[in-house]
Amino acid sequence: MKLDQISSPTLLLDKKRMIANIEKMTAKTERNKLNFRPHFKTAQSRAIGKIFRKNGVNAITVSSVKMAEYFAADGWDDITIAFPANVREAESIDRLSAKIKLNLLVVNVESVLSLGQGLKNPVGIFIKIDVGSERTGVSPENLSAISDLIQKIEASKQMRFRGFLAHAGHSYAARSREGILKTHESSTAILRKLKKHFSTDLPHLILSTGDTPTCSVAENWEGIDEIRPGNFVFYDLMQAQIGSCQIKDIAVALACPVVAKHAERQEVIVHGGGIHLSKDRLKIEGKNIDSKLSGLTIYGLPVLLGKHGWQSPESGNLVRSLSQEHGIISCTSSFFEKINIGDLVGILPVHSCMTVNLMDQLVSLEGEVMDLI
Amino acid sequence: MKLDQISSPTLLLDKKRMIANIEKMTAKTERNKLNFRPHFKTAQSRAIGKIFRKNGVNAITVSSVKMAEYFAADGWDDITIAFPANVREAESIDRLSAKIKLNLLVVNVESVLSLGQGLKNPVGIFIKIDVGSERTGVSPENLSAISDLIQKIEASKQMRFRGFLAHAGHSYAARSREGILKTHESSTAILRKLKKHFSTDLPHLILSTGDTPTCSVAENWEGIDEIRPGNFVFYDLMQAQIGSCQIKDIAVALACPVVAKHAERQEVIVHGGGIHLSKDRLKIEGKNIDSKLSGLTIYGLPVLLGKHGWQSPESGNLVRSLSQEHGIISCTSSFFEKINIGDLVGILPVHSCMTVNLMDQLVSLEGEVMDLI
Repeated sequence: MKLDQISSPTLLLDKKRMIANIEKMTAKTERNKLNFRPHFKTAQSRAIGKIFRKNGVNAITVSSVKMAEYFAADGWDDITIAFPANVREAESIDRLSAKIKLNLLVVNVESVLSLGQGLKNPVGIFIKIDVGSERTGVSPENLSAISDLIQKIEASKQMRFRGFLAHAGHSYAARSREGILKTHESSTAILRKLKKHFSTDLPHLILSTGDTPTCSVAENWEGIDEIRPGNFVFYDLMQAQIGSCQIKDIAVALACPVVAKHAERQEVIVHGGGIHLSKDRLKIEGKNIDSKLSGLTIYGLPVLLGKHGWQSPESGNLVRSLSQEHGIISCTSSFFEKINIGDLVGILPVHSCMTVNLMDQLVSLEGEVMDLI
Repeated sequence: MKLDQISSPTLLLDKKRMIANIEKMTAKTERNKLNFRPHFKTAQSRAIGKIFRKNGVNAITVSSVKMAEYFAADGWDDITIAFPANVREAESIDRLSAKIKLNLLVVNVESVLSLGQGLKNPVGIFIKIDVGSERTGVSPENLSAISDLIQKIEASKQMRFRGFLAHAGHSYAARSREGILKTHESSTAILRKLKKHFSTDLPHLILSTGDTPTCSVAENWEGIDEIRPGNFVFYDLMQAQIGSCQIKDIAVALACPVVAKHAERQEVIVHGGGIHLSKDRLKIEGKNIDSKLSGLTIYGLPVLLGKHGWQSPESGNLVRSLSQEHGIISCTSSFFEKINIGDLVGILPVHSCMTVNLMDQLVSLEGEVMDLI
């Protein structure tokens, strides 16, 4: 890494950590005979896509038609758009499904009927099940609604019912591995029950799930066919607090130029704000991050940068506030002394998916530049 | 506006409202004989820059060297980068100041010394004063530090001291016009006192200030030479809650396709998430937004879209949560009934600067497309 060439906020990638994260998840899917369909909304990079491909991945998940088009143009031909199908995009969907194997998600009958009218080419359809996150999905208790959806899907020429898809987003409320496993057991039990109910008529239906916390921690995958984690590729402070990873697994850090120092309040101002890191924030709870920061809300953790990457965070330092371009780092006296105007400081992000989305490129510690969407 | 051509999240601009906002602020600066140097970090659009130019504006403010380069390439030749000078960008700054009249900000002596070594071409230098926001700036009490900075600036060949620059960001804590005016009076008094102290030796020093709340509401500008508001061009819900504007002054709304409906909890899911609106949020306090939402945290307010723009928000509806691409709208029963899958719903943003930064273009109600940086 040529730190001295960096003059503005730059997203650094520790490729070794990222590859370790990918290999660990790949090994888990092999061990449990799971189809691995990683979510590319986190990495959003064709170069990183190629690394997954080397690891044997040939099917992916994305969160929009635009993202599906970006990866399809790079040769990915088996894509699930894990977002309720936007019927206003029927034309783009149809163009895409003429070229690749495409799966969509539905929640409401109205969407199925509209897609039936708008699409000409074959698509696979998953029914989104709400396993407890209360974001979107059909209630698993509502078997008549699910039956009705399946019937309408199967009645269409273009659509083929593929199975049930869930995202146990309520695992984000966990603050330990035990908490994550509890969510995992309850949400996979819901899916298994649905499979049991519907598999007599539909023996090939697939169960697909895939939040990073449960995929990182769980080992019991009985009945589940496919997982779709995304964030694990880089992880972040939110995941470390939940218990999905350790801080040393986080593979991205934003390099920020130091532009001002305030000795009277031991604060450092960096160029690196909400337009680089996002305004996602984290209230420190539990002991996974830094017990000295307990109860505080952080926008990132500052780390010192060296020739071979970034150091571990030193206890007691935090990004306490972000505005559009400013980051304010509250420091211990010893950390404050180590930082000078014109230096670069690293910031570990609260939510790497949002940070990566905001940046145009990743720069590996070896200096390799990878374009992002 | 051709709503039926919109298929994915699209930022709509009500140009009439925007022009009214610009004209009102222009009139205020003329009335008070203030130099108007609008902050272009909000609009980030050359097309909107041209509208300002038509209104007689010929000097602007930006928040990064990159943004300065973007506008300089469109003919703007008098630019202040209202962000502590990043000494790692000395080369880019120097290239820019060879072509245009450029002003920088400094807080620390180290920055002045470093710029003195790195720059060849002339630049104007403002000293950033912390008038109470505790983001960055020299304490106005610290006269010796300020004198020292002025001395070092004046000792350099390339740098010319221009004056004191402030941003009364603590006006964002106000919830009424009276609260804003209180902040305005205290922060401008601080600046006037500094001017009095230093103007014997430096009779041409400029006082520049410019947060949107005080610029929108205050009428007493005694001693102030220049204002630099940015957000007022579009305003947003945060500004409406503070008391800077009314909801009917907000000039942008994100048009979002409806992708799912959840009758059991009266919630609508739209394509429109944190990567479009940003994760900035607002806790509803006071009576400026909607007293039915008092105490709740919102990520935007949903509005119905029609041929001639968007309607006023209906009481009781809110964007309660955003994830990367999902927006969850909690509705009253009557609002829920009005929205169907495949419709577009508008969302008034909490913080328009962040939303505009995330989007690639603005589309006016008349269908005009304006590119953003």
